[in-house]
Amino acid sequence: MPPAPASRASIVRLMSLTASAGCRGCGRSHSAAHACASTHDHGKRGLATPVDLPGAPQGNTDYAFEMAASTLRFGTGATREVGMDLRNMINLLPANEQAAAKIAVFTDPNVAKLPVMKTVEQALQKENLPFVVFDKISVEPTENSWIEAIDWTRGNDITHFLAVGGGSTMDTAKAANLLSCYPDKDMYEFINAPVGKGTPIEKKLKPLIAVPTTAGTGSETTGTAILDIPSKKFKTGIASRALKPTLGIVDTLNTATCPREVAVAAGLDVLFHSLESYTAVPYYERTPRPDNPLKRPAYQGSNPVSDIFSKWALEQTIKYLPRIFKDPHGDEEARHQMLLAASTAGIGFGNAGVHLCHAGSYPISSLNKARPKDKQYFHPSYSPEIPLIPHGVAVSLTAPSVFHFTAPSSPERHRTAAEIFAGKDRLHEVAKVRDEDIGAFLREEIQKFLDSVAVPRGLTQVGYGTSDIEILARGMLPQRRVLDLAPVLIKDNQTQELEQLQGILEGAMRW
Amino acid sequence: MPPAPASRASIVRLMSLTASAGCRGCGRSHSAAHACASTHDHGKRGLATPVDLPGAPQGNTDYAFEMAASTLRFGTGATREVGMDLRNMINLLPANEQAAAKIAVFTDPNVAKLPVMKTVEQALQKENLPFVVFDKISVEPTENSWIEAIDWTRGNDITHFLAVGGGSTMDTAKAANLLSCYPDKDMYEFINAPVGKGTPIEKKLKPLIAVPTTAGTGSETTGTAILDIPSKKFKTGIASRALKPTLGIVDTLNTATCPREVAVAAGLDVLFHSLESYTAVPYYERTPRPDNPLKRPAYQGSNPVSDIFSKWALEQTIKYLPRIFKDPHGDEEARHQMLLAASTAGIGFGNAGVHLCHAGSYPISSLNKARPKDKQYFHPSYSPEIPLIPHGVAVSLTAPSVFHFTAPSSPERHRTAAEIFAGKDRLHEVAKVRDEDIGAFLREEIQKFLDSVAVPRGLTQVGYGTSDIEILARGMLPQRRVLDLAPVLIKDNQTQELEQLQGILEGAMRW
Repeated sequence: MPPAPASRASIVRLMSLTASAGCRGCGRSHSAAHACASTHDHGKRGLATPVDLPGAPQGNTDYAFEMAASTLRFGTGATREVGMDLRNMINLLPANEQAAAKIAVFTDPNVAKLPVMKTVEQALQKENLPFVVFDKISVEPTENSWIEAIDWTRGNDITHFLAVGGGSTMDTAKAANLLSCYPDKDMYEFINAPVGKGTPIEKKLKPLIAVPTTAGTGSETTGTAILDIPSKKFKTGIASRALKPTLGIVDTLNTATCPREVAVAAGLDVLFHSLESYTAVPYYERTPRPDNPLKRPAYQGSNPVSDIFSKWALEQTIKYLPRIFKDPHGDEEARHQMLLAASTAGIGFGNAGVHLCHAGSYPISSLNKARPKDKQYFHPSYSPEIPLIPHGVAVSLTAPSVFHFTAPSSPERHRTAAEIFAGKDRLHEVAKVRDEDIGAFLREEIQKFLDSVAVPRGLTQVGYGTSDIEILARGMLPQRRVLDLAPVLIKDNQTQELEQLQGILEGAMRW
Repeated sequence: MPPAPASRASIVRLMSLTASAGCRGCGRSHSAAHACASTHDHGKRGLATPVDLPGAPQGNTDYAFEMAASTLRFGTGATREVGMDLRNMINLLPANEQAAAKIAVFTDPNVAKLPVMKTVEQALQKENLPFVVFDKISVEPTENSWIEAIDWTRGNDITHFLAVGGGSTMDTAKAANLLSCYPDKDMYEFINAPVGKGTPIEKKLKPLIAVPTTAGTGSETTGTAILDIPSKKFKTGIASRALKPTLGIVDTLNTATCPREVAVAAGLDVLFHSLESYTAVPYYERTPRPDNPLKRPAYQGSNPVSDIFSKWALEQTIKYLPRIFKDPHGDEEARHQMLLAASTAGIGFGNAGVHLCHAGSYPISSLNKARPKDKQYFHPSYSPEIPLIPHGVAVSLTAPSVFHFTAPSSPERHRTAAEIFAGKDRLHEVAKVRDEDIGAFLREEIQKFLDSVAVPRGLTQVGYGTSDIEILARGMLPQRRVLDLAPVLIKDNQTQELEQLQGILEGAMRW
């Protein structure tokens, strides 16, 4: 396979290695050659605390990280417990509030027809719980589909939420919960800055139980909700711990009917949740330091506890996703482990964040919908008449180029990832790779893995060409929530940053 | 070193291997030689679901497990944020409840004099928060010391709890919180059956923030609270997810003054939290299956998510606890990693449980206080006039014998543990050990490790003799909460069970 035509990418990568970027760790401006191992090679960090500690912390970088996760229940058949869970929650309320309890069940038109919804409805009926169903969730929700769900919720005096579906359903339910608790606000109050105001959520939201039907998004444990803004041709969202479900019920029965292409795309999301959170800027390099713990973002940067989850989920996904590709319904062990991986990766990135692959995926997925029909991509097994680059595929398209780009920030971590991709039998091969070559090596390993699950080989395979690079890169720029966690990226000079993003996209055209 | 004089232990061990114990996994009665790999050798399990799944679950074993953990904040210096956290919590209340807010700060007389309490008080004062301090927590709390704390709390209209100290302080604060929410109940309503009634906690308790000053108990993230019942000569407690702190603030500054012996004993607790939870009966063999998710115990048995934490914490403790022993105050990296390990082990065992070492520790610690002075043990660096076998030491005394005993239940898991103790350079040596010898091998590895941190070499070194075996074994028998999670143990025949426990204690006399 010829190397990607990455002349511009190579130049930009070189630029970023020699540029005088401010070092967040030691506070000085220096080249990457400067020996600031504790911040640049965070693969080697053991202590994982800022260099100016202990004592009263100085500087403007953060010095703490927080781990918050929804309570999760894993069990084949556990969905049928959901009625009792809601009954238990309602029993905690004063009598007058118990009488007013009303559950909203969110789902999409496909899942509405599946056995999982029958199980859920029977579980609610068994406990005599009053519920209403909203089954109009869109795949890849938009402003308009969120508004529809929010308006419906506000008109229904909902007290408890139950989301049954994939990321689109869980995310829409989170938004509907939030905006029903803030009846006089609109979604832009909370959408990430600079697209929205990014106002911190200070209220305690209503209880939400999430029952995922894909092994992907991890939304059952995160405070993240993503939507498409067609007018801007990118996706963005809301990220706050306050959005976390109260409980996630993770049940292998619920992925038994998931179509192969959907399961694979979802699994690719898990793969890069893991790898991006593992390689994100460390929490003690993130600025600004919050002046109140409430303002410490959910996407904090990599940290020692998220690392445990992210690495485990990466191992599982590399092992089991190819088995899902081969036997999406029959291989129950693979489905079980992918669900575990999705949720644990969710805990990992939910407290660390993701970076460049996700930043790239938002315009890649969104722009596809607005293009001339002959340039659009239609993914097999989703609705064939709707142009769609599934989120997991969109994330994967840039990944080989992304990790080639980020490797100089933490060669040790990228080497660990390469070892997991290569497998136990090829550890000696990985050991021979020099630090400066580990990015190129990892790039090839990722490409081989993506080939094994039939991902399109780069942006050209989903209809994009060199002429689209600038608009895609400009669509990445407002994704500050994730770009700020991208290593190597020069964030204080927009011209240079845009150049780097264009370089990454150019390197993602084909493999 | 001569082998332990374990004639009786060997016999009982052999008995337990050949006894016709009912197999919870396959529901049949058979000898351990029967090939029931999915249940007896859960080291090899990949799927980790009961054999009668998928489909509507059958049988009386559980089929699901739940992961619940307190939100944890890790950061050197993060204690100073606690005033803002409490202010943020109080701001969520209606105005009249805000006006009535009153914080109880629990601590012990030693910690009360340390810098951490100054930091905490300043943080509360800065936010103008009303608080009262209860600084009479006993090391190794008893019924009476719990009653004192509960009475004080009930008399003070407390709305929020803040525990600053080790396990004794955090556990007492949990009990005080619980009993102030149930003003007409006494502690035996909730203490584990059969000692107490073990009534499930159905109310939502008041907010509790825990600030640990030792790296040990993990109480900052668990729903466990332990106390000594002197009249019965053993310790027991309350275990319920409802007791979990709302937030744990884990700050390396707060262990900086911890005496060496206290830090080592605390670290031994982490070691065996990890190893016991990793080797506990798997969740899908635990009976009875709960008829409501509220009744699923926090101590569920080993499960794939707890495993991730337990294994990681085991690795950290084996690496860093000897460094704490060598340099308890200066080695900041070791203190940092031990705090991370304590909390992650807490998440692990908090959702899986512990078994025989902990069951043994309760009478071992308690009986010591009631013996003639010439037979009592006084641990260096704790109050020299008080007879005390610190909890972590008490847990360690039986550990070599315990894991020798449990190894046949899951040779693969015990081999993994042996590999971690032995270290990377000796993996080839571990690989040569046959499955039937892995228990003896692990026993020696644990003994070497305990020697490296100067743990007394067995029960004889803390004043016990062969004549004490029966009373100690009988003190273990009521610890059903943990004994039910012990592999190999014959639970449906008390005579055989008592014999096995005596065998374990006999094997723990000296090494």
